[in-house]
Amino acid sequence: MEVITGGVTAAKGFLAAATEAGIKYKDRKDMALIVSQVPAVCAGTFTSNVVKAAPVKWDQRVVSEEACAQAIVINAGIANACTGAEGMGYCKQTAESVERVLEIPANQVLVASTGVIGMQLPMEKLDLGIEAMAPNLSDSIENGTEAACAIMTTDTKYKEAAVTFEVDGKTVTVGGMCKGSGMIHPNMCTMLSFVTTDLVISKEMLQEALCENVKDTYNMISVDGDTSTNDTVLLLANGMAGNPKITKKDENYKKFIEALNYVNTTLAKKMAGDGEGATALFETKVIHADTKEHAKRLAKSVICSSLTKAAIFGHDANWGRILCALGYSGVMFDPEKMELFFQGKSGQIQIYKDGIAVDYSEEEATKILSEEEVTVLVDMKMGEAEATAWGCDLTYDYVKINADYRS
Amino acid sequence: MEVITGGVTAAKGFLAAATEAGIKYKDRKDMALIVSQVPAVCAGTFTSNVVKAAPVKWDQRVVSEEACAQAIVINAGIANACTGAEGMGYCKQTAESVERVLEIPANQVLVASTGVIGMQLPMEKLDLGIEAMAPNLSDSIENGTEAACAIMTTDTKYKEAAVTFEVDGKTVTVGGMCKGSGMIHPNMCTMLSFVTTDLVISKEMLQEALCENVKDTYNMISVDGDTSTNDTVLLLANGMAGNPKITKKDENYKKFIEALNYVNTTLAKKMAGDGEGATALFETKVIHADTKEHAKRLAKSVICSSLTKAAIFGHDANWGRILCALGYSGVMFDPEKMELFFQGKSGQIQIYKDGIAVDYSEEEATKILSEEEVTVLVDMKMGEAEATAWGCDLTYDYVKINADYRS
Repeated sequence: MEVITGGVTAAKGFLAAATEAGIKYKDRKDMALIVSQVPAVCAGTFTSNVVKAAPVKWDQRVVSEEACAQAIVINAGIANACTGAEGMGYCKQTAESVERVLEIPANQVLVASTGVIGMQLPMEKLDLGIEAMAPNLSDSIENGTEAACAIMTTDTKYKEAAVTFEVDGKTVTVGGMCKGSGMIHPNMCTMLSFVTTDLVISKEMLQEALCENVKDTYNMISVDGDTSTNDTVLLLANGMAGNPKITKKDENYKKFIEALNYVNTTLAKKMAGDGEGATALFETKVIHADTKEHAKRLAKSVICSSLTKAAIFGHDANWGRILCALGYSGVMFDPEKMELFFQGKSGQIQIYKDGIAVDYSEEEATKILSEEEVTVLVDMKMGEAEATAWGCDLTYDYVKINADYRS
Repeated sequence: MEVITGGVTAAKGFLAAATEAGIKYKDRKDMALIVSQVPAVCAGTFTSNVVKAAPVKWDQRVVSEEACAQAIVINAGIANACTGAEGMGYCKQTAESVERVLEIPANQVLVASTGVIGMQLPMEKLDLGIEAMAPNLSDSIENGTEAACAIMTTDTKYKEAAVTFEVDGKTVTVGGMCKGSGMIHPNMCTMLSFVTTDLVISKEMLQEALCENVKDTYNMISVDGDTSTNDTVLLLANGMAGNPKITKKDENYKKFIEALNYVNTTLAKKMAGDGEGATALFETKVIHADTKEHAKRLAKSVICSSLTKAAIFGHDANWGRILCALGYSGVMFDPEKMELFFQGKSGQIQIYKDGIAVDYSEEEATKILSEEEVTVLVDMKMGEAEATAWGCDLTYDYVKINADYRS
């Protein structure tokens, strides 16, 4: 597997474009279009929130009932959530607009929205946006990046990743882009992620690969514990790599999972590190847990703890809060047996052992906690299972952004 | 039932004192002592955190194994959590110190600590503190209030409540004090609460009353979702009111539950409203839910949502976040059927109905959301169950307090 530059246009036959539709933001692109040159098999995972945005409902039908999909229309600024029948109608209208302009059947057009809940989409602007983007579709890296920028809301960085790998002599590419900064607690999470590949694979295997992999990637990040109404991951495979079709969990499937995992992990970490107001990516790695499920719960409990997140912002080695978060995770363990470490680029120090603090250097701990990527390593000393979760620190800017998001 | 002035010394035969022990804070009292003139039956509920502080373990034994208790020693500044065998030893030493000074058996002395996790208690200071408080014990209202002040950490206000009611011609009093501002997500939650009554009641009925009532009071508040290692509620009944002993769930038991519920609800709301950095008490009342358990989950999900809490701080009627929080609570419902209102002293306005926003006045909404107590009323239109949860807004000061708590 090789990491390459690019995103959603990295795989063969995927085109993208973006435009200033003027939906909510001014002086920036706020609409993106992804098109596959040929129909692609499609997999998706969606928010577990009972309150589902209209585009989530639209896409769920497409993914479950259609053999293929060929285009994705995304807008930023308005989430099209809690918008009733009118909002559902706008999903259909958007798809029909793509059909009219690009001759792709409306029932094979996916849609995604992110932004404020409760407002209706300005449909004329979306129609004009689709018309403006169609002639500019291109498979260039630049167009992929423009699309990644256009879907941002409170994100401060665009988020892309791509890799290639070999399947029976054919080069296969997996690339993707995502956005997500607040209301991030994917299960699934607004978190939107779009991954494309030219792999030849059955629809069943594609959906299985995605469902399995989101559990270890997107579902292991949290910015604020709020699971959005719009969370969507879409994975399109258009088969243009020409490899023998993957129809079972063989060696080639494993290679694909490895590539997909790299892209999804990279995108997920970029979201966590770019959490609203964040100054640091905060990783918690739990090792030697008794079960995988317990390792996940423990790791997520730490990265979700407001008190721990605030301590990370303060570069304060307040490890008692980490112990506390592990303790209320719902997992049973012996606090006297586990061990705790901080890790950063500048090194690793042990903090806790045998039920009490070890005699560590506060200065050294503060140095590690001042880095842009901070890792807490928790050794449960119980078994062989492990899991990693990613979050960010809790800052003044998180409050600022969210106390006044709508204005 | 009549609400009266006072707290932990309101009920007959309960004395209190406080002192500057100099454990961590300077120029303030940081230690309190509560004593009953006669041995009292005792009930307690404690943190569900796997990582339990030493005083929690000490008190659990006293409550479950001893017929009576007669004193409680409380310190602020150091939590005596994650302190190993040394920390457990200090609980015993504290109790023995009370035995030496007041001739109360050490195994009937309860202890409670709140503050930083991981540090050891300075035992000489605690011993001196007990010696200093013993001669100052008094049943005056002032001494109760001094005790309530001495147990504060990041609290900005002391918290007391008391009521009287009649049982067969005898006046019974229930009074209490608590502290709690951060690491508050009682289940049980540091939240410490101490309630005293002169009621004559069996130990079994006292424990049952407390266990039932904490579910609707302390367990329905959250400041930051962090369930502390030290959460403790202790309830002492010394029988000095002289009523016929309550041994079953009769009318008198119901009267006691009503009084206990008032004291506990009042104390719990005071903690939520005084959450770290908070500018407002944020109440969510769910009505017409299908079950009580669902009503509770829905209400708690809203008051725990960081995004909603930040919107309350911003006086922003961002109701989509409330819908979102209801949706990820784990409770199934039809978003098209439920209704949403904001309530304040200045009135009530409807926000959401039939799956979309109603045409409400943003100005009026902002006015309600600018009050010191804001209520979200959620009408599920499903059944007859209801529940109320209490939290607070998320502010810059919450981050400030917790980014640098140890220094």
